[in-house]
Amino acid sequence: MTQPRTFRGTRDFLPPELIGRRKIQEIIELTYRRYGFQPLETPAIEYFDVLTGKSDETDKLIYKLEHKGDALGLRYDLTVPLARVVAQHKQLPRPFKRYQIQPVWRADRPQPRQGRFREFVQCDADIIGTASLLADAEIIALTNEILAKLGFEGFIIRLSSRKLLRGMASLICGDEEKVFPLCRCIDKLDKIGWDGVQKELAECGFTDDVRAKVEKFCGLWDENLDWSAAEKVLQNVEIGLEGLKEVREVYERAIQLGVPPERLKPDLTLARGLDYYTGPIYETVLPDKPHIGSLSGGGRYDGLVATFSKENVPATGTTLGLDRIQTAMKELGIFTEVPSETDVLIAQFDEEGLPAVLALATKLRKADFNVEVWYESDRLKKQFTYADRQQIPFVIILGPDERAAGKVTVKSLATGEQKTIPEAELTALLDSAKG
Amino acid sequence: MTQPRTFRGTRDFLPPELIGRRKIQEIIELTYRRYGFQPLETPAIEYFDVLTGKSDETDKLIYKLEHKGDALGLRYDLTVPLARVVAQHKQLPRPFKRYQIQPVWRADRPQPRQGRFREFVQCDADIIGTASLLADAEIIALTNEILAKLGFEGFIIRLSSRKLLRGMASLICGDEEKVFPLCRCIDKLDKIGWDGVQKELAECGFTDDVRAKVEKFCGLWDENLDWSAAEKVLQNVEIGLEGLKEVREVYERAIQLGVPPERLKPDLTLARGLDYYTGPIYETVLPDKPHIGSLSGGGRYDGLVATFSKENVPATGTTLGLDRIQTAMKELGIFTEVPSETDVLIAQFDEEGLPAVLALATKLRKADFNVEVWYESDRLKKQFTYADRQQIPFVIILGPDERAAGKVTVKSLATGEQKTIPEAELTALLDSAKG
Repeated sequence: MTQPRTFRGTRDFLPPELIGRRKIQEIIELTYRRYGFQPLETPAIEYFDVLTGKSDETDKLIYKLEHKGDALGLRYDLTVPLARVVAQHKQLPRPFKRYQIQPVWRADRPQPRQGRFREFVQCDADIIGTASLLADAEIIALTNEILAKLGFEGFIIRLSSRKLLRGMASLICGDEEKVFPLCRCIDKLDKIGWDGVQKELAECGFTDDVRAKVEKFCGLWDENLDWSAAEKVLQNVEIGLEGLKEVREVYERAIQLGVPPERLKPDLTLARGLDYYTGPIYETVLPDKPHIGSLSGGGRYDGLVATFSKENVPATGTTLGLDRIQTAMKELGIFTEVPSETDVLIAQFDEEGLPAVLALATKLRKADFNVEVWYESDRLKKQFTYADRQQIPFVIILGPDERAAGKVTVKSLATGEQKTIPEAELTALLDSAKG
Repeated sequence: MTQPRTFRGTRDFLPPELIGRRKIQEIIELTYRRYGFQPLETPAIEYFDVLTGKSDETDKLIYKLEHKGDALGLRYDLTVPLARVVAQHKQLPRPFKRYQIQPVWRADRPQPRQGRFREFVQCDADIIGTASLLADAEIIALTNEILAKLGFEGFIIRLSSRKLLRGMASLICGDEEKVFPLCRCIDKLDKIGWDGVQKELAECGFTDDVRAKVEKFCGLWDENLDWSAAEKVLQNVEIGLEGLKEVREVYERAIQLGVPPERLKPDLTLARGLDYYTGPIYETVLPDKPHIGSLSGGGRYDGLVATFSKENVPATGTTLGLDRIQTAMKELGIFTEVPSETDVLIAQFDEEGLPAVLALATKLRKADFNVEVWYESDRLKKQFTYADRQQIPFVIILGPDERAAGKVTVKSLATGEQKTIPEAELTALLDSAKG
């Protein structure tokens, strides 16, 4: 006998949880379609060299496998496979707006309370083939729409640009490439605060003067969103001014797309870890639930497709973390478990009645009801207990008396009401209850 | 630069194919729900020992991976994980009717023309916790309903029982356990014909006499379905008579559930490879497309849960192979590719008009239309070419004249008709076209 168990960081989704989880996924998918995105699916298994070399951080997290000498791995995100797809399938339209909702795997330390697992589902929407910042603004607008539809209230979409951070690096350190160590330190601000970030910056070898300037620069918009103050500080740092212009344009277009200004926060402390971002970056946080981390994160990555192709293709997009979102909804009390989507259980009263029961089940199914029939000749009490536990709204009894009279007995488990009605009136009754 | 490529036997699903493929999946899922099944999802990664030991055939096909000394593997089917789930989560209801639509992986030789891949999607429906043959009949009824809804016409659902085959082994060989080599030979009948099967039986050491009797027994229902002839042949072989009774009951209940008799064929040559079946077995074939193999396959496996638990739990269910089904539909010309589900493209006419374009896009999205806006200040011709290629039915132009007049210009790409109407009439126009 084998002990039944799951690998740590992976989970079974039993029906009550999964039915609720799918409602989240449906809202995400529907909204992606509203914005004109089309679905894509890629294999779980990719060649190992397709997955590696995008960032040191992720390379270590890949689950490896092998097939007759081929080095393979499980995808750890959906962005790298998308870049591969764009390079590989030249027939794709431009712009290529794709969404993709699939699991990814990371050999990481699972932290279930924070919604971090080894197998988890990402919901991505990306726009390939345009450098227009309208694309970035649309990504922000759909993120806002999804989270609002899901019932989140206090979320903030943080917005910056990798170019703005490059500008800061250039301005303060005299070296644009210092953007990478700076970002990695600042990225931890939510978790460790400025004291912690200062310590990290010191460990990276930044001088007292630089560290003070970094903290001051990052605090520029703490009080109010002052575009000209930032412009003044950045002086003649071209890349920084470009980033500032980007952030402002994305911000204004997103507002035009209906994002409430109080939810969208240009934020000079937003760094995002991944090395491949080149322009606007954005992520969503719940200020009241800092331990959950970001519900969504993304940005522009104009160089990634070029790792697979001679053609350089601009791209921007976001990931919504289904597991993070579900974890947050549970904590906020806005996640609902649903034990079953069955509308009707037809009880088994007597074996002779089975042909009539099966015919009725078939008829109700054709009328778009979800129907179960009871399989055994059990006492009715047991059958009702099952229906009750599964929250099936109606139980139908089709005994010899009912069959002789062309009637059915219907019990509503919500109201406790039981009545015997002509079979012809049944679907109308069930319909009215369905609302 | 990394060469963009996919591992052999795995595939990218680009939007035109995937949108069509999802329509298949939706019909399967909807029908599963109609029959009262609830969704389940399990991890792709399982402990290696959870997956192994169910059949020699499958053990060799598992993709292995490792994590800090833990031996892991990718699931090769959804039945073994289900058995694990049932043993592990004692709170599940009985009966537990679950469906599961997820990818599985097999280190097999891919045969794309036959719809065989290394990564493929199984759509399973299983009923756990009842020995009632009503459950088996329901599985057959839903298989019939799904394939009919998908547009298949000539399919046959073959039905037998592992017990009937055990009876045959007992009757002819005097040893019930000979059912396994017999099944493995007979299972190849579709591919290699009786000549081939006879050769295989000889290689397994069966005598001329036995081989002749096997072929004769299997041919019993070739002409017409004669229950009493089979009963006579099986004489006093208890297990065989039990199997016969099972097949007959499942057959009759399935007919009561609306399965057309001409589509359901009790068939003594149906063997099914897997060792864990214990009762009724069933599979669907397209007699006109023998190279595609079975579109569905399943049966009763009352012993499988007991490999994980002291409790013995009866179970029956089927797998529909999404990839086989899609391959068959393509071959039959009943599979439709859909390049996009976008309803409207709003063109970019002038940059000053963008706020109005974005406001209109937001409004139409709220009215449940799938809307794209064009991101660049391109010539209209380029924008129309995109809409045409993507089969987007309408393009809207909101130029300075239209904006001044509170109007929009709408071009239907289907009819070529273009007209300028008040913006207030727009959603009604789009709605009427949507049907």
